[in-house]
Amino acid sequence: MINIAVLGYGTVGSGVVEVIKTNQDIVNKKAGEDINIKYVLDLREFPGDPVMDILVHDYDVILNDPEVEIVAEVMGGVNPAYQFVKAALEKGKSVCTSNKELVAKHGPELIEIAKKNNRNFFFEASVGGGIPIIRPLIQCITADDVTHITGILNGTTNYILTKMCKEGLDFDTVLKEAQDLGYAERNPSADVDGFDACRKIAILTSLAYGKHVDFEDIYTEGITKITDTDFKYANSIGCSVKLFGEATKVDGNIYASVAPVMISGDNPLFSVNGVFNGILVNGNVLGDVMFYGSGAGKLPTASAVVSDIVDAVKNLNTNIAIEWTDEKLELADYKTSEKKFFVRVNGTVADKLSEVESAFGKVEVITLDELKDEFAFITEVMSENKYEEAAAKVDGIVTRIRMGN
Amino acid sequence: MINIAVLGYGTVGSGVVEVIKTNQDIVNKKAGEDINIKYVLDLREFPGDPVMDILVHDYDVILNDPEVEIVAEVMGGVNPAYQFVKAALEKGKSVCTSNKELVAKHGPELIEIAKKNNRNFFFEASVGGGIPIIRPLIQCITADDVTHITGILNGTTNYILTKMCKEGLDFDTVLKEAQDLGYAERNPSADVDGFDACRKIAILTSLAYGKHVDFEDIYTEGITKITDTDFKYANSIGCSVKLFGEATKVDGNIYASVAPVMISGDNPLFSVNGVFNGILVNGNVLGDVMFYGSGAGKLPTASAVVSDIVDAVKNLNTNIAIEWTDEKLELADYKTSEKKFFVRVNGTVADKLSEVESAFGKVEVITLDELKDEFAFITEVMSENKYEEAAAKVDGIVTRIRMGN
Repeated sequence: MINIAVLGYGTVGSGVVEVIKTNQDIVNKKAGEDINIKYVLDLREFPGDPVMDILVHDYDVILNDPEVEIVAEVMGGVNPAYQFVKAALEKGKSVCTSNKELVAKHGPELIEIAKKNNRNFFFEASVGGGIPIIRPLIQCITADDVTHITGILNGTTNYILTKMCKEGLDFDTVLKEAQDLGYAERNPSADVDGFDACRKIAILTSLAYGKHVDFEDIYTEGITKITDTDFKYANSIGCSVKLFGEATKVDGNIYASVAPVMISGDNPLFSVNGVFNGILVNGNVLGDVMFYGSGAGKLPTASAVVSDIVDAVKNLNTNIAIEWTDEKLELADYKTSEKKFFVRVNGTVADKLSEVESAFGKVEVITLDELKDEFAFITEVMSENKYEEAAAKVDGIVTRIRMGN
Repeated sequence: MINIAVLGYGTVGSGVVEVIKTNQDIVNKKAGEDINIKYVLDLREFPGDPVMDILVHDYDVILNDPEVEIVAEVMGGVNPAYQFVKAALEKGKSVCTSNKELVAKHGPELIEIAKKNNRNFFFEASVGGGIPIIRPLIQCITADDVTHITGILNGTTNYILTKMCKEGLDFDTVLKEAQDLGYAERNPSADVDGFDACRKIAILTSLAYGKHVDFEDIYTEGITKITDTDFKYANSIGCSVKLFGEATKVDGNIYASVAPVMISGDNPLFSVNGVFNGILVNGNVLGDVMFYGSGAGKLPTASAVVSDIVDAVKNLNTNIAIEWTDEKLELADYKTSEKKFFVRVNGTVADKLSEVESAFGKVEVITLDELKDEFAFITEVMSENKYEEAAAKVDGIVTRIRMGN
């Protein structure tokens, strides 16, 4: 029998308890050992909940119990999760976590401590919820030069953008609805400003290239400026707008960003809708592969944590190597990255197009019958710097959205 | 340095050589060792090809060379691949293969021999080409009761069906075009009759449930009877037809099949088009996850083989457990499996509907303006047996296609 402890009895923590209980026989069989939840740590009480029998408020009880072999950290946030996880690994316990903030900030150090202690630090649930993406990236896609990772990594923003796209609603209306449904937090900034996706693409980029990407280096733009009018234009040309976390390798330079991107129906991520996540990985010999599923939610995320626990049991005294050193990965200057831009501008095509083309060069014009006093255009491929230079020369630009493939 | 041998210098074999050569630095780094191709086995000569320097015609040279630690078997077919692979494992060499016939037929035995010899038998490329699906299934989705696996597992048939769907062409025309483009074999039976998909779903089902599925037990129906008229009906209701390999667990019974299935745009596999493959796995707590990418092709398949080689190097003296015993998995009788059916029948709705409904119960009628002397209907959910009973009571049934979700 293998004893584990669950740190945090919130959404994911209660999910972990539920998944193990629901699928106890399967989990035991896959692990090759009976898995027993010996403790759940939470500051709160849960009167009437069976968890009360194993609830502890003092982490030292878990830390100092040599029978606890594996700790599932599902509290979220960097502190005290970082101190708890580090202490567990140093005590020779393996740790499985769903905590993207923790992994993005302290991943290399915790991987190294696990290695030194011949234990494991697993974090499949930290990106893409229940979608297997961490192991495929580090164990399966190992024959390739990874040239591109594009992810819809945040279910809340994808839900909002999908609703705006399909129902013509504006951002504020859909955000409120998402909040009422529990899909968005009362303070939605971590999602809608792209901070959540930023940590996740930082983790994926670090794993793809084996060095540490500081998430603070990643250009991050949220979806708060996307409007129902933008979607009218997008729909008119068979496109949608998605919040992408992206890493791209061009001529040896690695770019990383989080930003809304307009994509056409040809992109496999186009049909990733609602709260689902999708991650497209391109390798130089593999081509495109995509991973799709529930990127959040109690049970899917808990399923990934429990799968990590199973793997930790199977490798109790064997460190599974994860190549992610603390050597910093210097990202290329985002302003030099190149793409097409979708741009909306006030005025009529007749009055304005020559001004636009003298700044941007040849563009593709999009007009909507219902909008008489503005139009949109799509530029040729240009750098962010060149875009800014050109945009400064044109009066009345309303907005710009980057174009994807 | 780790020496490997490649058995077969056909499409995948030459791909393996090319991938290792192209990405040698990355592959060495991920493996933690320099990987050297010491031999390529093929009966043919390749004058002028650099492979001539390492080409051998006699397998014993490879088998008896203790320096060869890993063998990549990419010849295809059961014999002599089976004898070669078995002998290599017994000599203490790890084997990586793309050979679905071999794995479907002899998987459990070869896994067992690898285990006894503390070596590995890996076969990521045998299903889904370059798409990571074997490792995700056995290493990631371990906390779930797998309730459903649905795969578009054959690129050739998916190419044909996609062309028929989008361009309104008939089967024979598209098959010929696919043959001319090299997407289909001159003898297309293995693809169009579903035999290839059958072996692949046999492998996935065996891995999901840990016991051996005999592919000969799987109900297998190809796409040769699907017509352009079927697609006219499908398109009229926002549906398409895909060749699915499926495994379903219902009340503890496991069903497996290969058959064309009509699906709507809500199904994540709807947008898996052309030569691409997609595999949707549903777990009782995880929900749906989908894996998508190039299911065949020289370089994507070779990428998966080389990833296996990297993993074999990383685990040179450690057997990675794969739960797939030779205990037979008894599939439930396919005739008892339940679904809706799309049925075309000669006659007019006015003349025929009462006969249809007295046999099938309430149905949903579909008519096409251009077809005056036939119509189609979709039944309620019923078993295959019940369908056959009802169909026997109605004259003039043209065809039936199973409906998916």
